[in-house]
Amino acid sequence: MLVVMKNHATPEEVEAVNEKIRTLGLSPHPIPGAQRVAIGITGNKGPLDPGLFEGMPGVAEAIRVSQPFKLVSREVKEEDTVLDIGGVKLGGRTVIVMAGPCSVESREQILEAAHAVKAAGATFLRGGAFKPRTSPYEFQGLAEEGLKLLALAREQTGLKVITEVMDVETLPMVAEHADVLQIGARNMQNFSLLKQLGNVRKPVLLKRGPSATLREWLMAAEYILARGNYEVALCERGIRTFETMTRNTLDLNAVPVLKALTHLPVLVDPSHGIGLRAHVAAMARAGVAAGADGLLVEVHPRPEKALSDGQQSLTPPEFEGLMRQVRVIAGAVGREI
Amino acid sequence: MLVVMKNHATPEEVEAVNEKIRTLGLSPHPIPGAQRVAIGITGNKGPLDPGLFEGMPGVAEAIRVSQPFKLVSREVKEEDTVLDIGGVKLGGRTVIVMAGPCSVESREQILEAAHAVKAAGATFLRGGAFKPRTSPYEFQGLAEEGLKLLALAREQTGLKVITEVMDVETLPMVAEHADVLQIGARNMQNFSLLKQLGNVRKPVLLKRGPSATLREWLMAAEYILARGNYEVALCERGIRTFETMTRNTLDLNAVPVLKALTHLPVLVDPSHGIGLRAHVAAMARAGVAAGADGLLVEVHPRPEKALSDGQQSLTPPEFEGLMRQVRVIAGAVGREI
Amino acid sequence: MLVVMKNHATPEEVEAVNEKIRTLGLSPHPIPGAQRVAIGITGNKGPLDPGLFEGMPGVAEAIRVSQPFKLVSREVKEEDTVLDIGGVKLGGRTVIVMAGPCSVESREQILEAAHAVKAAGATFLRGGAFKPRTSPYEFQGLAEEGLKLLALAREQTGLKVITEVMDVETLPMVAEHADVLQIGARNMQNFSLLKQLGNVRKPVLLKRGPSATLREWLMAAEYILARGNYEVALCERGIRTFETMTRNTLDLNAVPVLKALTHLPVLVDPSHGIGLRAHVAAMARAGVAAGADGLLVEVHPRPEKALSDGQQSLTPPEFEGLMRQVRVIAGAVGREI
Amino acid sequence: MLVVMKNHATPEEVEAVNEKIRTLGLSPHPIPGAQRVAIGITGNKGPLDPGLFEGMPGVAEAIRVSQPFKLVSREVKEEDTVLDIGGVKLGGRTVIVMAGPCSVESREQILEAAHAVKAAGATFLRGGAFKPRTSPYEFQGLAEEGLKLLALAREQTGLKVITEVMDVETLPMVAEHADVLQIGARNMQNFSLLKQLGNVRKPVLLKRGPSATLREWLMAAEYILARGNYEVALCERGIRTFETMTRNTLDLNAVPVLKALTHLPVLVDPSHGIGLRAHVAAMARAGVAAGADGLLVEVHPRPEKALSDGQQSLTPPEFEGLMRQVRVIAGAVGREI
Repeated sequence: MLVVMKNHATPEEVEAVNEKIRTLGLSPHPIPGAQRVAIGITGNKGPLDPGLFEGMPGVAEAIRVSQPFKLVSREVKEEDTVLDIGGVKLGGRTVIVMAGPCSVESREQILEAAHAVKAAGATFLRGGAFKPRTSPYEFQGLAEEGLKLLALAREQTGLKVITEVMDVETLPMVAEHADVLQIGARNMQNFSLLKQLGNVRKPVLLKRGPSATLREWLMAAEYILARGNYEVALCERGIRTFETMTRNTLDLNAVPVLKALTHLPVLVDPSHGIGLRAHVAAMARAGVAAGADGLLVEVHPRPEKALSDGQQSLTPPEFEGLMRQVRVIAGAVGREI
Repeated sequence: MLVVMKNHATPEEVEAVNEKIRTLGLSPHPIPGAQRVAIGITGNKGPLDPGLFEGMPGVAEAIRVSQPFKLVSREVKEEDTVLDIGGVKLGGRTVIVMAGPCSVESREQILEAAHAVKAAGATFLRGGAFKPRTSPYEFQGLAEEGLKLLALAREQTGLKVITEVMDVETLPMVAEHADVLQIGARNMQNFSLLKQLGNVRKPVLLKRGPSATLREWLMAAEYILARGNYEVALCERGIRTFETMTRNTLDLNAVPVLKALTHLPVLVDPSHGIGLRAHVAAMARAGVAAGADGLLVEVHPRPEKALSDGQQSLTPPEFEGLMRQVRVIAGAVGREI
Repeated sequence: MLVVMKNHATPEEVEAVNEKIRTLGLSPHPIPGAQRVAIGITGNKGPLDPGLFEGMPGVAEAIRVSQPFKLVSREVKEEDTVLDIGGVKLGGRTVIVMAGPCSVESREQILEAAHAVKAAGATFLRGGAFKPRTSPYEFQGLAEEGLKLLALAREQTGLKVITEVMDVETLPMVAEHADVLQIGARNMQNFSLLKQLGNVRKPVLLKRGPSATLREWLMAAEYILARGNYEVALCERGIRTFETMTRNTLDLNAVPVLKALTHLPVLVDPSHGIGLRAHVAAMARAGVAAGADGLLVEVHPRPEKALSDGQQSLTPPEFEGLMRQVRVIAGAVGREI
Repeated sequence: MLVVMKNHATPEEVEAVNEKIRTLGLSPHPIPGAQRVAIGITGNKGPLDPGLFEGMPGVAEAIRVSQPFKLVSREVKEEDTVLDIGGVKLGGRTVIVMAGPCSVESREQILEAAHAVKAAGATFLRGGAFKPRTSPYEFQGLAEEGLKLLALAREQTGLKVITEVMDVETLPMVAEHADVLQIGARNMQNFSLLKQLGNVRKPVLLKRGPSATLREWLMAAEYILARGNYEVALCERGIRTFETMTRNTLDLNAVPVLKALTHLPVLVDPSHGIGLRAHVAAMARAGVAAGADGLLVEVHPRPEKALSDGQQSLTPPEFEGLMRQVRVIAGAVGREI
């Protein structure tokens, strides 16, 4: 249930609705809008009667929400959410490109990568300081040193920084250095972490789990919004199927379906999605054509020497080529890069 | 192994190679090319020694083929196969759009659909006369009457006709009326049917099975080529995954991967792929952006009354909108519609 | 809808119900039972009103069938179907074991295999004369010669013969030699073939397609029953998942779920299911423990020389060991082998 | 590489090998055995030369390990690991049954459940105090209160307690009350948590992620062993496939494959695996027949009132019936319950 307040509803009228909701044993979630406030209700098992609220002063209407996800739903908030990340708008007309190496490996590597992706038109630098690896014997990231190198690259280039946070322990450290906190696919349903992200005042990029349904993914985002952090974007990065020629199966069907279901920005990671350098550009083009609000692309100065994901990382010249291609596609769908 | 003959190799020299192959207990597959003949060898268990052929008169070189599929492979034929279907080129610079209803339902319906998709720019009319349906109690198609209605629509509009063939019994009847024979997803590994298609002189559009790997799909196409029919195109139509919000998961990763592995044209069916009318256009745009050589789109004059697949069929105005969008995307990737 | 007639309903009363169904534009399917006739109704889109039939002479009751599959459903026929195959009962208390090589390769091979599996306690000989193979360059079976060798092995051992039929063309030939017609996984939704099987008077073993849902599988069986052949058994043989260590993922969940939904016998093929010789016996034990009515096991006198599926075929001594193990399990679930 | 020391190798000889490994830039992992020490080596990219170690004093042999998982591998430790959990042996001849409700809901509920499963023959009480739920609006568990109730139930019944730990923050609290720490499917690749579990002196039950390959699962276990906690057991609980009639697809193929690859105990959770009360017993039987070392079964005094997973929870009488059935199966495979 969503209670939509009139344009000039007073704070007292809003609070009266909140109080009514609480007396029903439910939780109110006031969602501030440009013109008027709406109040999401959670905690109910079955549908509520709109009549409970529609007579109250300041209430415009009470709408039933048909999906199990509420705060992330377009039913609750019709207009697109546009995140303002230090002046860069994510979710608006401009398609945002985030690029950089899988892992931060050294000062030289990250700075070289940062300058290269900046020159080609990226607005965000990506790079992992904490790396979730299938094997305990693989490179696990430079940790705090990596975060500092990312901050240095930001200073030199003006790029925003997105990097992965793996646990609650290192969340404050990562939040100190990053502009956007990335939640990796394997942690999409790490609910303890999601709850903490709800308390943080940093935008979050939530990657889809390799076998998460769209519904589960939206529910995971709901965990963050339900705790009060409304700055969330979603990133499709390939699902697990029976196909073995590609690393994952980038599910572009998710893009238009999500754009219809949720007001949150939707990005695409073609690098993890297909996992083959030669085909990253084709999937990036397709992602933008399908309506993605942004791209996450792996770029490494020397992919053949990368400590992780070299087989899917582009060289700087390849990335430049990709940018040229997706710019044309963005124009063809009425957007820009 | 592929034995590539010199440009001016004589028929006798070609035959000598064929004979040599036969004496090794293997099968020769001469593949005529624009300038010179190549001879594929099948039947060997392990790699063959190029020296067996490289000394022979007229032989330019002998190349090891690393994939289990051979005749469909780019290793064997580097340049794109362009099918000439009564003057319409499939696999060339122009992206071909095939559109029409799921099933031929009546004279009025198919003619109305044909004129509408023709007006919007399609060059092929699609429509099923024999319908594979999950339930024996569902509409199974108009059979021969449907084929005649398709032929009538072709006569009136000049569109080419593509329709599904379900079995060997009705193959001659379908081949008589269709310009392209479509093999549905459920028959992708109906090997008895594939073998017969190898003997037919009609182009074949082979749809991907819902859980077929790219390798299995290429091997299924190989069945047709191995019997002598080289006019084959492939069509991605969605794979089966765990996701339930979409009918299937259109796997656009298949497009660039296949274009690298095979010389055959690759089409995309966004209608079956995502199965939701509202999102067909987005997936069509993405398909063309990924490099597809054509689209297969379901269009019905009155989708709400369709006997099958109404929920994914576009109305004629929606299809017109889709055509406008994909034309721009085609231009953005250096092609046209 | 199922109209259940009273025990002593007359043929005229039954025919009156049939006629009533036809005048509604629907199809009656009289299902003869031990004591009384039931008439399935198909062709209706929504639920029918039981009152249409419950007043008619001879009618005991009219029951709504909630599933899209009808004739195969336990709602329509509560007691287990027990197939009588030349005196061998499939679907009763005895767990039936069908064993033999993947392909019939030679007279010596099939006779040796037949004697071995007979000695170990199998009652059916399995072996393919027509082989669906992923590659056109692989061994495709001995065709009619293979069928004759199977018949010879039956003559020598008294084993019943089960073998695969791949198409309508060879159906009469296969039906002449086989006791049970096997439909392979790739042909589960070859509807043209299924329809013909409905007209045949031979039991059919319908294997599950590698990505078929249980519902689709039951609908495929429904195709056969709807045409009049009620002698159908189902065989789980592994589904396609993301796992690559096993050939397929034998889905034993299917066994109890199917036994609840349908009255047809349910078998398990552990050989294709897991695809690894060392683990076939464990999966055979688990299949019987889960409630399977029979097993299909690949046995080859010399697996290392098999023309197909050698890696999953048991040697005769290994098969003997498997039989000993499953006999104990059968006893533990109140059955016998 | 695994360096196996002679029976009477001295500590100095062992240390010399460790030192040699470190000078190669690799990590030694001494694995104490009943009679002799073996030293696993990790950190190498390619195969090592056995000659590096085989001449050294005290070294019996140096063995190449072919899998990416090492410490969990049977190549490294041939005999079964048997965990001794306060006197209860997990991984030995006795099949261990862990049973109880999905969530601890109240004092009455958990005590009633505990006495019931104890009476039926379970040796462990399961019950969640911290619950990972798809929706933030669902019951999240009683937290510390739940842990105390579990401890109380242990006191009253003598059952061991297994309960889920969701994060590093609550790990000490859970470890204080639990006998075995359960890692849920969604946290299988929560590497930060796995690393901490490596430092804990409590047995861990690691559930398989819903789309984890067997290799990834073993690598996740390797994370725990690599940090020094060798007391790990694995639990198959159903994978995600395309099938929708069952909640998950319990993958019993995993049981024999894992038993061959690893020395760790392997359990099966039929409740989550199939997710349908009526079929839990069949899958439990099949799991034991396949070779499982234990079962995890959901039992609730009043499933229809359960706050979570009621549809798959057994009533106490149903659980008693299940125990009778699996006891017979255990006997049939040479084990007991």
